[in-house]
Amino acid sequence: MTTQLNGVNLDQLVGTVNVIKEQPEIAKFQFRTNTRWLNGGHCQTEIQSFYGAGNEDSSRDKPFIVDGDEPPVLLGENHGPNAVEILLHALASCISVGFTYNAAAQGIKVENLGLSLEGDIDLHGFLGLSDNVRPGYENIRLTRKIKADASEEQLKELWEYAQKTSPVLDIIRNPVPVSVELESI
Amino acid sequence: MTTQLNGVNLDQLVGTVNVIKEQPEIAKFQFRTNTRWLNGGHCQTEIQSFYGAGNEDSSRDKPFIVDGDEPPVLLGENHGPNAVEILLHALASCISVGFTYNAAAQGIKVENLGLSLEGDIDLHGFLGLSDNVRPGYENIRLTRKIKADASEEQLKELWEYAQKTSPVLDIIRNPVPVSVELESI
Repeated sequence: MTTQLNGVNLDQLVGTVNVIKEQPEIAKFQFRTNTRWLNGGHCQTEIQSFYGAGNEDSSRDKPFIVDGDEPPVLLGENHGPNAVEILLHALASCISVGFTYNAAAQGIKVENLGLSLEGDIDLHGFLGLSDNVRPGYENIRLTRKIKADASEEQLKELWEYAQKTSPVLDIIRNPVPVSVELESI
Repeated sequence: MTTQLNGVNLDQLVGTVNVIKEQPEIAKFQFRTNTRWLNGGHCQTEIQSFYGAGNEDSSRDKPFIVDGDEPPVLLGENHGPNAVEILLHALASCISVGFTYNAAAQGIKVENLGLSLEGDIDLHGFLGLSDNVRPGYENIRLTRKIKADASEEQLKELWEYAQKTSPVLDIIRNPVPVSVELESI
């Protein structure tokens, strides 16, 4: 018998935390993607293997295939969302996991969770038309709708905790070093 | 007749740049996503409308649907790539667009472009087990394979330019403010 809340296996959650407390190395993960440019704004990414919990993961029989493209106004053909759109999804997905997992850990049942995101960007940066305009989002707004079996106070605390521990929110709010290597073809 | 290179419409590219030089407001874009938590680690995001070039875009008849989930080792069911994996795709997609568009603008034909990304993350941060470990990636490595009709020197310059003007690389390397609002359900 397993104890589930919000679709999260609580036994496994507690077990994972306890194993990491005893073997800190278990917490080291490496995620990977492989992207091929196809044509114009269109690229395709394969996502399958990763290293974590001391092993190469083998849970995925085949890769996830994700398409990226631009809309026509940005010279693409809408084969997929563009890079800054999918980045907003990454943030929402991260917050969704963190909020519902931590709610489960605290015995809070989540009925509904909706996250709407907006990001403002000035293309002078991307187009190289101004050194005073950053290429990326100037700011991002996240609006959340939550229905859960908890007090306002509990939800506020949970929300603060989910923000503090969110990998993607950290990556967006704070600098991450990115190194670049060239491989001959 | 249109002039295309790397699948990029050069007339439209030059036209867009010229319009923005005359009307800087045209460069202001707002991108949006709507995410619903489904169960456990699984969420689904709809991506359709955006504002840009002075208008609400209407080029997409229906939304892109993107699934996010965790693998079983992170208590999910592999309905989609997780948040930090899709973030690597966002970076690769952004670099792919920037590199091939700017190559086209310079008359450089790109034959192949492949981008492999790796990100290292220690889950002590996400799991709230340490205040000394950041939740996000400690670092990201990008390996590129390029085959193009250009000298090493040209490619190096183009690559530097693509990095300097990449929205997602900027968002990852530098801080972006993220505000959070609560909407009652």
